[in-house]
Amino acid sequence: MITTQLLHPQSIVVVGASNNTHKPGGAILKNLINGGYQGELRAVNPKETEVQGVPSFADAKELPDTDLAILAIPAALCPEVVETLAGEKQTRAFIILSAGFGEETREGALLEERILETVNKYGASLIGPNCIGLLNTWHHSVFTQPIPNLNPQGADLISSSGATAVFILESAVAKGLQFNSVWSVGNAKQIGVEDVLQYMDETFDPQKDSKIKLIYIESIKNPDRLLFHASSLIRKGCKIAAIKAGSSESGSRAASSHTGAIASSDSAVEALFRKAGIVRCYSRGELTTVGCIFTLPELKGRNFAIVTHAGGPGVMLTDALSKGGLNVPKLEGPLADELKSKLFPGASIGNPIDILATGTPEHLAIAIDYCEEKFENIDAILAIFGTPGLVTMFETYEVLHQKMLTCKKPLFPVLPSVRTAGEEVAFFLEKGHVNFADEVMLGTALSRIINAPKPAVPEIELFGVDVPRIRRIIDSIPQNGYIEPHYVQALLHSAGIPVVEEFVSGNKDEVLAFARRCGFPVVAKVVGPVHKSDVGGVVLNIKSEQHLALEFDRMMQISEARAIMVQPMLKGTELFIGAKYEEKFGHVVLCGLGGIFVEVLKDVSSGLAPLSYEEAYSMIHSLRAYKIIQGTRGQKGVNEDKFAEIIVRLSTLLRFATEIKEMDMNPLLATDKEVIAVDARIRIEK
Amino acid sequence: MITTQLLHPQSIVVVGASNNTHKPGGAILKNLINGGYQGELRAVNPKETEVQGVPSFADAKELPDTDLAILAIPAALCPEVVETLAGEKQTRAFIILSAGFGEETREGALLEERILETVNKYGASLIGPNCIGLLNTWHHSVFTQPIPNLNPQGADLISSSGATAVFILESAVAKGLQFNSVWSVGNAKQIGVEDVLQYMDETFDPQKDSKIKLIYIESIKNPDRLLFHASSLIRKGCKIAAIKAGSSESGSRAASSHTGAIASSDSAVEALFRKAGIVRCYSRGELTTVGCIFTLPELKGRNFAIVTHAGGPGVMLTDALSKGGLNVPKLEGPLADELKSKLFPGASIGNPIDILATGTPEHLAIAIDYCEEKFENIDAILAIFGTPGLVTMFETYEVLHQKMLTCKKPLFPVLPSVRTAGEEVAFFLEKGHVNFADEVMLGTALSRIINAPKPAVPEIELFGVDVPRIRRIIDSIPQNGYIEPHYVQALLHSAGIPVVEEFVSGNKDEVLAFARRCGFPVVAKVVGPVHKSDVGGVVLNIKSEQHLALEFDRMMQISEARAIMVQPMLKGTELFIGAKYEEKFGHVVLCGLGGIFVEVLKDVSSGLAPLSYEEAYSMIHSLRAYKIIQGTRGQKGVNEDKFAEIIVRLSTLLRFATEIKEMDMNPLLATDKEVIAVDARIRIEK
Repeated sequence: MITTQLLHPQSIVVVGASNNTHKPGGAILKNLINGGYQGELRAVNPKETEVQGVPSFADAKELPDTDLAILAIPAALCPEVVETLAGEKQTRAFIILSAGFGEETREGALLEERILETVNKYGASLIGPNCIGLLNTWHHSVFTQPIPNLNPQGADLISSSGATAVFILESAVAKGLQFNSVWSVGNAKQIGVEDVLQYMDETFDPQKDSKIKLIYIESIKNPDRLLFHASSLIRKGCKIAAIKAGSSESGSRAASSHTGAIASSDSAVEALFRKAGIVRCYSRGELTTVGCIFTLPELKGRNFAIVTHAGGPGVMLTDALSKGGLNVPKLEGPLADELKSKLFPGASIGNPIDILATGTPEHLAIAIDYCEEKFENIDAILAIFGTPGLVTMFETYEVLHQKMLTCKKPLFPVLPSVRTAGEEVAFFLEKGHVNFADEVMLGTALSRIINAPKPAVPEIELFGVDVPRIRRIIDSIPQNGYIEPHYVQALLHSAGIPVVEEFVSGNKDEVLAFARRCGFPVVAKVVGPVHKSDVGGVVLNIKSEQHLALEFDRMMQISEARAIMVQPMLKGTELFIGAKYEEKFGHVVLCGLGGIFVEVLKDVSSGLAPLSYEEAYSMIHSLRAYKIIQGTRGQKGVNEDKFAEIIVRLSTLLRFATEIKEMDMNPLLATDKEVIAVDARIRIEK
Repeated sequence: MITTQLLHPQSIVVVGASNNTHKPGGAILKNLINGGYQGELRAVNPKETEVQGVPSFADAKELPDTDLAILAIPAALCPEVVETLAGEKQTRAFIILSAGFGEETREGALLEERILETVNKYGASLIGPNCIGLLNTWHHSVFTQPIPNLNPQGADLISSSGATAVFILESAVAKGLQFNSVWSVGNAKQIGVEDVLQYMDETFDPQKDSKIKLIYIESIKNPDRLLFHASSLIRKGCKIAAIKAGSSESGSRAASSHTGAIASSDSAVEALFRKAGIVRCYSRGELTTVGCIFTLPELKGRNFAIVTHAGGPGVMLTDALSKGGLNVPKLEGPLADELKSKLFPGASIGNPIDILATGTPEHLAIAIDYCEEKFENIDAILAIFGTPGLVTMFETYEVLHQKMLTCKKPLFPVLPSVRTAGEEVAFFLEKGHVNFADEVMLGTALSRIINAPKPAVPEIELFGVDVPRIRRIIDSIPQNGYIEPHYVQALLHSAGIPVVEEFVSGNKDEVLAFARRCGFPVVAKVVGPVHKSDVGGVVLNIKSEQHLALEFDRMMQISEARAIMVQPMLKGTELFIGAKYEEKFGHVVLCGLGGIFVEVLKDVSSGLAPLSYEEAYSMIHSLRAYKIIQGTRGQKGVNEDKFAEIIVRLSTLLRFATEIKEMDMNPLLATDKEVIAVDARIRIEK
């Protein structure tokens, strides 16, 4: 739980405070003092009566009541101090910096457990152990450097790694990004990343609270909660970017189905972030660049004007934007000519707008004004202004400063001369601005943001899905593993998913009778072996009773063969839908075209069940081979609405049948009229 | 031409020298003085007898003989000064900083032309006009800041944009990258990027010369020369990385064939860089990161050990390396246990090797030693060491410094705390090292380098290609445009490319006779219309004479139909080979699978003709759908050798028939035994 005493303590004690600022207990006290903490500061140090000018007590028992305690003492001593403070001193918030707990030994884990019990008993907050602390505009309770500039509208950073938080700040400070708070949750014994987000969501005040959240997380312990509160915050107007590290490890796990092989646990993260509307980043530089973009007015479109006095960077930025699907539209016509007439001869207007190396600050102002007021096909302005060092850039950057205050369209300053114009850049940042020193990293981050989907509507599409029947079927299945075809058929039917008519029997006459009834040609498949085609257990396009009788006899000889399944032979484009249950995340649903598209090209989109129609369409549209679904030259397309419908219905089915661990429909056969599942496999585990 | 007077002048005059260092003529003199230039410095300034302590002459005519002249005077005055200096003062090198030439007006272009005539007449060098100058270890003839640290083994930077060179230096200096020379070629009236490379190649001394070349180029004027000298330098042991900006513009150009639509002029650049072995970069940050990697010992493999005292960055770096196809192999067994026993309890060894936040510099040294000496599956070491600011990092970085001097395996320092440990990082860089502050950018750059191909062998595979016959056929074709099928057949035959037997005639009896001879089923296609299938001009699998007769009559009614072509109906996997002549680059050859792979998925590889077998195989292997060529579950593969052979032979054909502007073979039908061209179109322009 997150208490007022944690966020806004009236008094803070550093237990293990030191005059040696090379130790965490010294450094954190120094940061608190330098940060101008306005409450009462106290220290506990048995050897001193004063530490760094702060009154020191020999023992926690001697302290007056204190809101927040920061512990920088050996792990073994922590439980008792916590008990004393919570039990006797009304302390309702603890930050434990010390390591040596559950991350190292079993004994440590027990210590942690004891502390948790105590803080929970007293309704107190616990940050850590094994963390760098918590920093906000009221108190700088971290022992690390750098301390960024603080601002109630700055970013909130929540990190599951203390060192990474520190290095993210290094990257952020250079860009001028300011912060409202920095949370290092360490071992997250009580408060993890999800808890902080939940608190921010539940107490969100759109007038006062920061709207920028940056997250570094290594393991998502509670995906549902992360999803719920992240998307809720985004719907309330927040912007969230996150690094989920460890995306590569799990690709290699063994799996028994196509879906299993394709859906790594990273697909689950990918799907979760998409569903929540979180912008996914992969490096500290990217995360802080995205954070800086979040501080500027919201982008309303994809059309950028680049204003510069140097050609090259504008060209590289144009390339980066185009690669991300953003536009640098040509500027032409009378307004463009008018602008050109106000600049030096030789200036170019086409976009990038190059006011020339000799262009004046006034020229810059004019060019920005045209983009802001006159060019209606421009949504945002990128200004690239470095220097070869002849004159100072104060005047130019003052123009940028003024324009950033007044422009309604976002104006992105790219100031590459961070050394040569170091003073000017610093002066510009001091006014509260950010700087994107590398234009290409800015371009890439912009496309990441614009291409991130909005949070999905958290509703389950129940229409036409017979949930009680689904539960009855699942409950009646006698054993784990791949389930019998008739269960598969029944489950898909219950969700309203069209399935090809089929008949399974070990009796040749019955099989022949079914084929006569449904009409030739038919498909025959052996029932029993898992990889049917590898053992010659699939025959397509059987056109006569005689041929079917022959294949029946042959297939029943295949090892493990128990029966033969017959279906009418359908035609159409092969589609694929699969799903995999990912521990804690729920079902990751994949869709794509079938055959080589899924097996060789791995061209699949992923989503997290349950899925809305909007999400299903967005999954379909993001396939590389989407054009085939639309229909290409000479070939009719596929009924996209039916495809989306099956994705949505399946995702609903899965939500009520979490026993399904892996499944695929491969192929579904699709025409411009219908999409029908032809083969499906489902593995359950109860 | 590049003269000794340009590279190593005994005397330099700045014409237009100024005491005002905010002007180019003042700033460049200041840079020359501060750079400790050892030759004679002179100034020309009509108002002064001394400029910045340097003797000044009122007029160029009054100067003694001077090797190199730097002009910082109005464009209009330049031609006469150049004439005076070259004609009367033995000046054999000119750097013209001034703008106002061909880049602005027609008059300017004429001035430029006059200057070029003069310098050529006297055998002098000309850098510029409209540039920042030339900087090397002997003279700092640039007017800009920053001046990087210079080192004969540092990078050579050649840039076609002065401002971009300046901003590349900003990015490089922060990373500690040192330079041997910086060339800003400006308008490149005499000396362009290709000329500088050629000079470096032709005078290359492996003992003395720098082996690192970084290039920024916007328009490749002479691709052949760039290719020749870049690959020659790389074969001599150099490493080259380049940004070619402007990669997005040309994707939209109109084209009349599949190949035309797919092959943007950026494919030509891509193909050229691959052929030369140049590492392509897209941002200043990337270029300078790659440059820093080039300063370290060469990578011998793909297996990395990460040594760190902080988890997060190691995980992000692992992700980035894996994404690029590089490995962070697990370390286990007795040696790993031995290393673990020498570190603090809780340290992890699996890789990343985490020596813990409390780990000592000795622990770092031990971990590096194990990677260098004992772990044989490790090719390179990445050390991530930042700080939360408690203690200084001098000792840790001293360990890195010592190890970098002695380790044979490359050791990459990742020091993220560029502010908090600013002094320590600066001290480390002063020893001549580089720093990769962002681990993910390093990981990405490493994979770019390792995945860049070696330069191709510049040989033409002539075996089985009848060049004289090709020339005779081309010369005999009466008009431009798409050529008649019999010419297509003859050209492919001459190159030894197997083509399906076919027969073209407007006479039904002849057509039927051919079909009888080659055997049914056959394919019939209309001759005349370009997009045959759109007008119903293609019928596959005609099984009888009767059916063929019917189709003959129908197709001859199609508008523009001139004749009918008949081929035996072949089966196999569809392949695609196309080519497009790109002005100055020559033919870009594309290959891939046919049908949707080329039309929808754009899954093609490109190469620049002529192609060696090695290049053809590398093109085939880099297809996303390569597994289909190898053969996937249940489906036989394609004869890859024959596919490569056709690519090579076609590329040779094209080299001798530059009149071919666009062509495609689509499809070729491939089995595990044969690859045969079934349909081909060729457009020529003489």
